[in-house]
Amino acid sequence: MYGEYTRQEIEDQPRVWKEILDNPPCIGEIGNKEEIIYFGSGTSYYLALSLASFTQHYTSIPSRGIPSQELVFFPETIITRKPVLYFGISRSGETSEVVMAMEKVRTLGKGSFISVTTEAKSQLTLKSERVIVFESAKENSVVMTKSFTSMLFGVQLGILNAISSTDMGLIKEGFIQTSEKILSTARDWAEETSKRDYKEIIFLGSGPLYGIACESALKVREMSSSLTSAYHTLEFRHGPRASLTRDSLVVVLLSDSAREEELRVAEEIREIGAQCTVIGDKIDNGISIDSGLSEFLRLVLYMPFAQYLGYYRAIKRGLDPDMPLNLTQVVKI
Amino acid sequence: MYGEYTRQEIEDQPRVWKEILDNPPCIGEIGNKEEIIYFGSGTSYYLALSLASFTQHYTSIPSRGIPSQELVFFPETIITRKPVLYFGISRSGETSEVVMAMEKVRTLGKGSFISVTTEAKSQLTLKSERVIVFESAKENSVVMTKSFTSMLFGVQLGILNAISSTDMGLIKEGFIQTSEKILSTARDWAEETSKRDYKEIIFLGSGPLYGIACESALKVREMSSSLTSAYHTLEFRHGPRASLTRDSLVVVLLSDSAREEELRVAEEIREIGAQCTVIGDKIDNGISIDSGLSEFLRLVLYMPFAQYLGYYRAIKRGLDPDMPLNLTQVVKI
Repeated sequence: MYGEYTRQEIEDQPRVWKEILDNPPCIGEIGNKEEIIYFGSGTSYYLALSLASFTQHYTSIPSRGIPSQELVFFPETIITRKPVLYFGISRSGETSEVVMAMEKVRTLGKGSFISVTTEAKSQLTLKSERVIVFESAKENSVVMTKSFTSMLFGVQLGILNAISSTDMGLIKEGFIQTSEKILSTARDWAEETSKRDYKEIIFLGSGPLYGIACESALKVREMSSSLTSAYHTLEFRHGPRASLTRDSLVVVLLSDSAREEELRVAEEIREIGAQCTVIGDKIDNGISIDSGLSEFLRLVLYMPFAQYLGYYRAIKRGLDPDMPLNLTQVVKI
Repeated sequence: MYGEYTRQEIEDQPRVWKEILDNPPCIGEIGNKEEIIYFGSGTSYYLALSLASFTQHYTSIPSRGIPSQELVFFPETIITRKPVLYFGISRSGETSEVVMAMEKVRTLGKGSFISVTTEAKSQLTLKSERVIVFESAKENSVVMTKSFTSMLFGVQLGILNAISSTDMGLIKEGFIQTSEKILSTARDWAEETSKRDYKEIIFLGSGPLYGIACESALKVREMSSSLTSAYHTLEFRHGPRASLTRDSLVVVLLSDSAREEELRVAEEIREIGAQCTVIGDKIDNGISIDSGLSEFLRLVLYMPFAQYLGYYRAIKRGLDPDMPLNLTQVVKI
């Protein structure tokens, strides 16, 4: 049966999230840093983008998400001599560019160096001062699903802990229950949506949801070899929507802060004649996550939609979601 | 005749660049700033990305390119209380989000506020402390071509001036001559390339060339309603290439710093069976710009390729490059 690993890993998410919620990681002192830089490649880069937005929102410390390759080949465009907290993210800890990027920041930068991974012993962890390991987020599939959401959720909780935020309590209240329900909502939507062979699938998100939109587009592209894109939601009007046709599907990941404007973007997409699904919290005309959590705290709950869409679209096209075309589990150069 | 404005505006670029080179803008003191933030929407956002990479490379001041919408709706994830030099970029100076973003940074941020535009009097310039106007980069077409490259080139020269860089001399030597030649090389390549109806066209770039890759993808998408994407070059291995087929075209904008690795990415793309064009300086197996300038100084010379490809592909598909589908010249909300 195609995609067994991927399906299991998607479904395993609420269990892993609960484990992390019961035992959130310790990040240590962050208040003495002048900048926080998250870096990774592929899915881990998108993780870095969402974490940076989340982190600056909560800590007011300037935070950036950077693709590892930029630290390796263009270090002078990012690294400064100020004290910075660097997070290198890699599921395997063996991705060449992330390991090289960690070497680069340790040589040229100043500060603390943490790795975020699912493997306790790796090239990356050997080069880090501190390691945050999410053992239960390990995967067999090439494509990252639960490892993305679990590392994201885990570091979010670590940041909240580090600043003693009371928002931790908000998450504990109903998160796991909501997440079980979301999985089933997402599966139904994706199975139905995969019946139509869209020419392009576009994900839109703002603020912390931009990284989620990028990762969503990547999931569907990887698993089902589809043409997908991601943009900041309001950016979509500034050019990209020129390609919309009746065979396009646009998925808007609705935020709170830009909600009204984003709903107008969705409306305009429908007027052009393209298909548009809006996923948000407490909404009428779309899919409602109903978490009651803010746009910064409900991030991972948006992910199962694209994960399942990639899965079902792959099956529909006769592809194996566990074994995407042209890819390997770890990229070494 | 379809696309007359666009064609004229593309061809007008060397003339405008020369004008700017003869009379580069004055940016003023920048050394007293702790951060430099460029912001814009659409094409102007991609301009911000390339300028940020360029600026931190030359000044060592942390620099970021941000979509205006993020400053408007998620200001706390970007704006700090440190002295920052803000550049708001908008061809018309009337783009709602850029104007709103300028209001936001003036209210919440500290520092200096400059607008970069082609119109001397606008909502944006009214809200700025200083205005850099490129009058000769004004356009009739909806799609930005010469306004993008001219504002980019102009601010680059302004930064070099501000730090009294001797690299200004390097540019003056052969830039205009090279640029005339590039226009004709790009036109020939684009006309030939537009004969084949690729299902997806992907642009790859690293460092300062990532913004150029994004803008290239946007040009082709806007003018010809094609499906296009952009990625950091080495990121392409980390997932996106799963969608490659024999009907994909990938254009690699070759840097100097990551050159060897980028050439390997191109090689792998060809092994998969997709079409791949490499554009670089002094290369054998691809299109050579032959500027003799560094990856940071030859940025605008990469742009005519995608501009012409959008133009010829639109004509080929019976579309008018001057009037893209679903778009307006100025986005007001």
